[in-house]
Amino acid sequence: MKTLISIRSLGRSDLDALISDALELRNRLDDRGVIPRSLEGRCVAAMFFEPSTRTRLSFDLAAQRLGAHVITFDPETSSTSKGESLRDTSLTVAAIGADILVVRHSQAGVPQAVGEWTGLPVVNAGDGAHEHPTQALLDAVTLRRHFGDLAGLRMAVVGDITHSRVAGSLIHAMPVLGVDLTLVGPAQWLPDESTVRMSQSLDELINEVDVLYLLRVQTERGGVIDQDYIDEFGVDAARVARMGAGAVLMHAGPINRGVEIGEEVAESPRALINEQVRNGVPTRMAVLRALAGAST
Amino acid sequence: MKTLISIRSLGRSDLDALISDALELRNRLDDRGVIPRSLEGRCVAAMFFEPSTRTRLSFDLAAQRLGAHVITFDPETSSTSKGESLRDTSLTVAAIGADILVVRHSQAGVPQAVGEWTGLPVVNAGDGAHEHPTQALLDAVTLRRHFGDLAGLRMAVVGDITHSRVAGSLIHAMPVLGVDLTLVGPAQWLPDESTVRMSQSLDELINEVDVLYLLRVQTERGGVIDQDYIDEFGVDAARVARMGAGAVLMHAGPINRGVEIGEEVAESPRALINEQVRNGVPTRMAVLRALAGAST
Amino acid sequence: MKTLISIRSLGRSDLDALISDALELRNRLDDRGVIPRSLEGRCVAAMFFEPSTRTRLSFDLAAQRLGAHVITFDPETSSTSKGESLRDTSLTVAAIGADILVVRHSQAGVPQAVGEWTGLPVVNAGDGAHEHPTQALLDAVTLRRHFGDLAGLRMAVVGDITHSRVAGSLIHAMPVLGVDLTLVGPAQWLPDESTVRMSQSLDELINEVDVLYLLRVQTERGGVIDQDYIDEFGVDAARVARMGAGAVLMHAGPINRGVEIGEEVAESPRALINEQVRNGVPTRMAVLRALAGAST
Repeated sequence: MKTLISIRSLGRSDLDALISDALELRNRLDDRGVIPRSLEGRCVAAMFFEPSTRTRLSFDLAAQRLGAHVITFDPETSSTSKGESLRDTSLTVAAIGADILVVRHSQAGVPQAVGEWTGLPVVNAGDGAHEHPTQALLDAVTLRRHFGDLAGLRMAVVGDITHSRVAGSLIHAMPVLGVDLTLVGPAQWLPDESTVRMSQSLDELINEVDVLYLLRVQTERGGVIDQDYIDEFGVDAARVARMGAGAVLMHAGPINRGVEIGEEVAESPRALINEQVRNGVPTRMAVLRALAGAST
Repeated sequence: MKTLISIRSLGRSDLDALISDALELRNRLDDRGVIPRSLEGRCVAAMFFEPSTRTRLSFDLAAQRLGAHVITFDPETSSTSKGESLRDTSLTVAAIGADILVVRHSQAGVPQAVGEWTGLPVVNAGDGAHEHPTQALLDAVTLRRHFGDLAGLRMAVVGDITHSRVAGSLIHAMPVLGVDLTLVGPAQWLPDESTVRMSQSLDELINEVDVLYLLRVQTERGGVIDQDYIDEFGVDAARVARMGAGAVLMHAGPINRGVEIGEEVAESPRALINEQVRNGVPTRMAVLRALAGAST
Repeated sequence: MKTLISIRSLGRSDLDALISDALELRNRLDDRGVIPRSLEGRCVAAMFFEPSTRTRLSFDLAAQRLGAHVITFDPETSSTSKGESLRDTSLTVAAIGADILVVRHSQAGVPQAVGEWTGLPVVNAGDGAHEHPTQALLDAVTLRRHFGDLAGLRMAVVGDITHSRVAGSLIHAMPVLGVDLTLVGPAQWLPDESTVRMSQSLDELINEVDVLYLLRVQTERGGVIDQDYIDEFGVDAARVARMGAGAVLMHAGPINRGVEIGEEVAESPRALINEQVRNGVPTRMAVLRALAGAST
């Protein structure tokens, strides 16, 4: 693996290798076991041009746990405030000595451009409404831990599909892993066409899915929250009660309680939301290790 | 010790053990001796919802010196800017893998709530006008280094007692350690009742105390600075001259020169202000070690 | 070496020792060789009161590579927002346990003042229009790597000399190293007098120099960009074509493409701009090692 811009660049065996390594690392973290210093002496640069808690801290800790030096580019106190171009900033961070760049940006395509400019491995930590590949990977890790096997799982991704980079990565990762995926949402939030099934009715399929994956209503990207959406697609206790016996709820966070997810639903035993976060660090460790050429 | 929200949770032997460990660590730091890697592989998350220099950097360095990974939650560039609740943010930071949370917040009770939500050890790094327990601990360490023994020391804490979290912790810590404490300030800044003596006149007791502990006038919490306060309670060179032979001045900083402390008084040989800061790192190391279950 | 406020405090042998160490460290970094942990257990405090990407991250990584603990003072979330004086803030950072302070400030003289207040070694990371000594050092390192020897090199520094701290350091470093230096710019941007040659015409000497060092037009310090400047002193492809066969271009960054440097000129094979950045980390490592008293 040379870079991780899109989950589409990874085949089944790549995904399996990353998931296996993440599962092994998760176990070692839980048991306080030995963590390989695979990035000893390497430098990971975090370049987050958008607000982030979980993703930034998750990469930061992942890199530290592997022994890397972490440098954090802060757009607010940096030379971008002197008008430096993104390209020149990227070349500068590369020249300082970064070995791997972790890039989040509000514009789709920026991580790829940064990779092309610098020639360095880049992890796309979310670019506009395009992709968020480590999210799809950690979701796969979470499902592997919960269900053992992903083959044949029925998953519905619910919400604003067109504006969601999480959906953008899930759409490609999950089918490769054997998951039977359906995109669910109001017509205006579904793509015109897709490689996977689509539905405008959550209630028609809620009792049939194994995994209900709720997307954040991206109010900050112009998504409009109205009562109609909550009524039709919001997952409250009543809808949770209609889910199958072993079915689970997932969400990439941050959650909007009372919007896409009912006030108490995040606390439901079905909710794997905190498990997803917990798997973020070992998953990103696996990705960083792969990019650093560490032997698994 | 499971958590450190309030100094009230610590008995005499707990205080003594922490102070002893801090004194030992201070000596090792001064001598560039071996520092135990008690937090090797552990993660300390700094969650500062209020501006801070000394406390944030002090915890940061304390954690690093013990070998911890430090992740810093920044409310300004985080998902709280997307409207995530404090509870959800805390659960996220915990799920990322923090072992100990260091929390400062403008609202009393937040560190306790964070501890209850997450089940993790929390160090209260200052919550509203409630408590700032590591400040009281480092003050005790400073007095132990200066006076050898705290029993029988007469200390006056001067200023806006009701708005001060430093006072909130000193009031509980100092009497347990044998210090004879008096709260001094104008009537409107003294509590209605207290477990310790109170006085509205600094001049009546200034020549009798061993320790004069000045509180910052918290202009940012609505404290009003007027000339009357400075006249009656500000410690200028004239008042310093009336202190007893071995008496000392303390202040938790940041100081308002010309308000609660005269322009030149902070430079007086009596002032232990920088010593307090210097003892902050070993004191917080002792607290982190205790929370991590390190053997002393 | 006790501190590094001005390049003027360094004699020829000091400069040579730092450059040699930086060259050796650069080779080790390139070869992923062993890096001496010369700052193990030491604390470097970064105090940047002005925006910075390359300099802040470069010092951060340099300190980490040597094993130091790094604490970062952030003026925006610190007690300076409570009105603490620069002097008290500096004393606090020193008392927390910093061994070396790296200081950038918009006002000339602040790093020196911080050194006097605290008694600690300070690295001036840029103070107003005064000096930026590690920039001049890394430029010397870059020239040593490129030309082998600096003696007799003809260098023109072009631009707003009076507002440039980079020029402020180059003017003193380069002649000591045997470089034949000329300051070039419009009359209003040249000092009234100088220890080195001055010229108001770039075109008169562009074909004779070995090194053309372009200064950023400091729009944020009140520099005015007008077409006259670009016409007379901007280095576009036509001017590059008139440079001597082995002549090179340098710039301390961030560059203003289309102002002092033509859109495509930074990509010219003559441009050593990224090499300068790349030499920043080993140069700052050499400086930190010298200040920590590490044996070379």
